[in-house]
Amino acid sequence: MMVGARHYQSIWPADDGASVEIIDQTKLPHAFVVAKLRTLTDAASAIRDMLVRGAPLIGVTAAYGVWLALRQDPSAVALGRACEVLEATRPTAINLRTSLSRMKARLADVPEPGRAGVAYAFAAELADEDVVQNRAIGGYGLSLLRNMEASRRQQGRPLQVMTHCNAGWLATVDFGTALAPVYLAHEAGIDVHVWVSETRPRNQGAFLTAWELAQQGVPHTGLVDNAAGHLMQRGDVDVVIVGTDRTTASGDVANKIGTYMKALAARDCGVPFYVAVPSSSIDWTLGDGRAIPIEERDSMEVTHLLAQDGHIGPVQVFPRGTKAKNFGFDVTPARLVTGLITERGVCEATREGLSSLFPEHGVRARTEERR
Amino acid sequence: MMVGARHYQSIWPADDGASVEIIDQTKLPHAFVVAKLRTLTDAASAIRDMLVRGAPLIGVTAAYGVWLALRQDPSAVALGRACEVLEATRPTAINLRTSLSRMKARLADVPEPGRAGVAYAFAAELADEDVVQNRAIGGYGLSLLRNMEASRRQQGRPLQVMTHCNAGWLATVDFGTALAPVYLAHEAGIDVHVWVSETRPRNQGAFLTAWELAQQGVPHTGLVDNAAGHLMQRGDVDVVIVGTDRTTASGDVANKIGTYMKALAARDCGVPFYVAVPSSSIDWTLGDGRAIPIEERDSMEVTHLLAQDGHIGPVQVFPRGTKAKNFGFDVTPARLVTGLITERGVCEATREGLSSLFPEHGVRARTEERR
Repeated sequence: MMVGARHYQSIWPADDGASVEIIDQTKLPHAFVVAKLRTLTDAASAIRDMLVRGAPLIGVTAAYGVWLALRQDPSAVALGRACEVLEATRPTAINLRTSLSRMKARLADVPEPGRAGVAYAFAAELADEDVVQNRAIGGYGLSLLRNMEASRRQQGRPLQVMTHCNAGWLATVDFGTALAPVYLAHEAGIDVHVWVSETRPRNQGAFLTAWELAQQGVPHTGLVDNAAGHLMQRGDVDVVIVGTDRTTASGDVANKIGTYMKALAARDCGVPFYVAVPSSSIDWTLGDGRAIPIEERDSMEVTHLLAQDGHIGPVQVFPRGTKAKNFGFDVTPARLVTGLITERGVCEATREGLSSLFPEHGVRARTEERR
Repeated sequence: MMVGARHYQSIWPADDGASVEIIDQTKLPHAFVVAKLRTLTDAASAIRDMLVRGAPLIGVTAAYGVWLALRQDPSAVALGRACEVLEATRPTAINLRTSLSRMKARLADVPEPGRAGVAYAFAAELADEDVVQNRAIGGYGLSLLRNMEASRRQQGRPLQVMTHCNAGWLATVDFGTALAPVYLAHEAGIDVHVWVSETRPRNQGAFLTAWELAQQGVPHTGLVDNAAGHLMQRGDVDVVIVGTDRTTASGDVANKIGTYMKALAARDCGVPFYVAVPSSSIDWTLGDGRAIPIEERDSMEVTHLLAQDGHIGPVQVFPRGTKAKNFGFDVTPARLVTGLITERGVCEATREGLSSLFPEHGVRARTEERR
């Protein structure tokens, strides 16, 4: 997407042929900083410290991380260790694991001297695949928005989309998942407006989504997370679209903490609640979302606000010494989800719905469950 | 309640006989500052700028504000103007209006020279009444907690209470509404633990509730607002107790923005959801909570975090130039409320429930509705 007058993706191979460049997302929106990843350690740190975040993007970053590791040591031991290190960075997003499994499968029969090259090519392939999937999600989501817009237009007001956290292009290689339909709608001349929740504790809504939308010129308004329910009660939200870090084979959706309460409010107020799910975020081995591991992060993210304008450090929010609990994600049960927008179309958030679009996995999931 | 080794109320007449002192709540938790209100303007500003906040406390502050106005000019015109100025400070909490109506009724037949004295005495009476009501609420709430605690104790873990915003002693003259049962439970030796949500945008949970609980030695843990639903899904919350700024005669509850989503999560997870309601917060003239005026506040409270440690000013959260919407309250429909804890006992959140405890008002409410 555009940053000023220039097109960027969120990750790309550097010109030196020996490193990867990313946008350091911990610096946004106050500074636009490109960081270079030269080693496995750099890649793992970038994921763990959230210089890159968003399930699809960390999957691709991990793949490039394997390449960086194999450049230094192409042995099977080094490959195994790289995958272990990368997989341990963050537990909830399935994309990380999927990406590493696919990488290992791809490298299985490749002799040592060729491994780094194959890893590089496969990482680039995963990156491209992500962009293609997101464009497809955008197209299917656009059709949903078009249907909703017809009635809105008669009321003389914009189509109101609510999202949560950042599932825009910064969460992916390009284009975004939940925001892809919004960008396409805006391009198509639909009068669309986005409600952007702050998304404490790390404020990805405020820091990233509001910034992204402003760069693309999409009208939007900021909110505290607490205000989502009231807006829906007032009839000011036509549809909620969020991303996901892991969706089970039966349609339970792990996503940024707070998603579940937005889904409850949507259900209570009769607002459709959609999840944009590239198949890379589906965990075909899990049925019940309660089995998804939920990352717990440093309590300082809660007790402090991570101010990022370069001039000041973390700002104390809770009194000094207050203990805090910091869950990164929650699970929205499939029953609260109106539909899943995948790269193959929109389906019900059920095993049957997902199997109809991904029959090859549906069979596998059912088989694994029977065991 | 205690602040260090000394007992404080949140408002008290100063020794000079000509002013009122308050704790400046915009400075907590980083500084404990007492401010003096000498004039009507001081009182109105203190309410509008939230040096005092919490429905019961602003009701009492307004009453003292009338006294301060009448000390300077005891005329009927001045009285009328004082009430207008005070009532216009904040729209949602009914206590403000109720307190001023009662004050006007009390002063109706008082000749000018006696008015200031009567106003002072009546303000003090309202303050005392608030404390008495809150102690009664605490007692009835304690009974609820005792019933829940029996089963918790068998599981070898504390009784887990979740609250929202600050409905502790700082929101009242003393003792609190939603936190009154918690303080009594703690005193009674019940192993009670409180989940404290930050409560963006003004962070009254982080700044005030966590501070209050720490002063009284009640175990508690901080959370971002987004985490409430996940905690309830995990079974880590035994009961939610919140305060209210205005509850209708049929039990709809206006309270700090975000309350509605907590109530939805409680309902979805089978967690009892109680509202502590002194009768001063009941609007007997309203049935449908959607008719409650919802205050909209400065968008800067959303786009910035109001850092309060005296060293730094507001911290930018959303990118510069982002528009924001800032609703102060939302309305939780009565159907989501397990019960109302009043100073006369616990009742269902229904017209019948409230009428059974307050028959004198029940009749009035029904009559007004019939008109």
